[in-house]
Amino acid sequence: MTTKATRLVIVTEKILHKEITRIIDAAGATGYTVTAAGGKGSRNVRSSGQPLVADSYPNIKIEVITADPAVAKQIADDVAARYFDNFSGITWLDEIEVHRLHKFQRQG
Amino acid sequence: MTTKATRLVIVTEKILHKEITRIIDAAGATGYTVTAAGGKGSRNVRSSGQPLVADSYPNIKIEVITADPAVAKQIADDVAARYFDNFSGITWLDEIEVHRLHKFQRQG
Amino acid sequence: MTTKATRLVIVTEKILHKEITRIIDAAGATGYTVTAAGGKGSRNVRSSGQPLVADSYPNIKIEVITADPAVAKQIADDVAARYFDNFSGITWLDEIEVHRLHKFQRQG
Repeated sequence: MTTKATRLVIVTEKILHKEITRIIDAAGATGYTVTAAGGKGSRNVRSSGQPLVADSYPNIKIEVITADPAVAKQIADDVAARYFDNFSGITWLDEIEVHRLHKFQRQG
Repeated sequence: MTTKATRLVIVTEKILHKEITRIIDAAGATGYTVTAAGGKGSRNVRSSGQPLVADSYPNIKIEVITADPAVAKQIADDVAARYFDNFSGITWLDEIEVHRLHKFQRQG
Repeated sequence: MTTKATRLVIVTEKILHKEITRIIDAAGATGYTVTAAGGKGSRNVRSSGQPLVADSYPNIKIEVITADPAVAKQIADDVAARYFDNFSGITWLDEIEVHRLHKFQRQG
């Protein structure tokens, strides 16, 4: 049994980690996944060294899976409006099929 | 030359790493990618600290690319049935276009 | 406001990091995201140990978001032609919706 859902991906600077997860929680999403990331954005050069150790990753990639596309868009809008004038970042959405809907449903 | 394929993503607790890759191998998939992940699930709070070092990531994200959607679904079903009553986890699927089909074809 | 874009993912050996990002820059893409990865490919076994520390990840996963699918395909073709006879690797594409187009537009 699979269900269509929206995956929101936010790649931005590590310093925003706590603030963004607070926005995600406030929007009603019940979970997210965070990975350390390096890279280069259009605004300026970020980490360009080899990713030898995680400490050298200045960015994070946050993924949010939600059954409600409006929740994903709300989070993306909030994050962009609050931070992307001053911090590097990009957000994108795609549609996925989730196997375990009850793991990420809104808790009410 | 690109070919349609299915990408299966499993995000779950790191302790399941070996058992899940065994399920992937047994299902006939020829490869997978693993990254360290933190985050929060609907079941309970997982890592909420800043991802400063990889050691602090309690989760893994496993990606499996397969030409046969049934293989991806079989792996997702097996993983969910065996572990997700007792461990945090989510699995999802999406369709991708792969450039190098011969790199992930079944060897048998 | 969202815009359709193409996401290219390259998973390959860490030693190719610099050369591949040079190809990405040369193709006119303005940014990419890099994460450390382990896993197993169809060619041979790569990291099979538990991903306890980032140092143990022998691979990288590079994501490139571009408004022009031809740029993504060009990068994928170049990378495969130059390296995948001698190194493990896979590339795939999918379509996404980006929230912040101006962050990854071509600068030239």
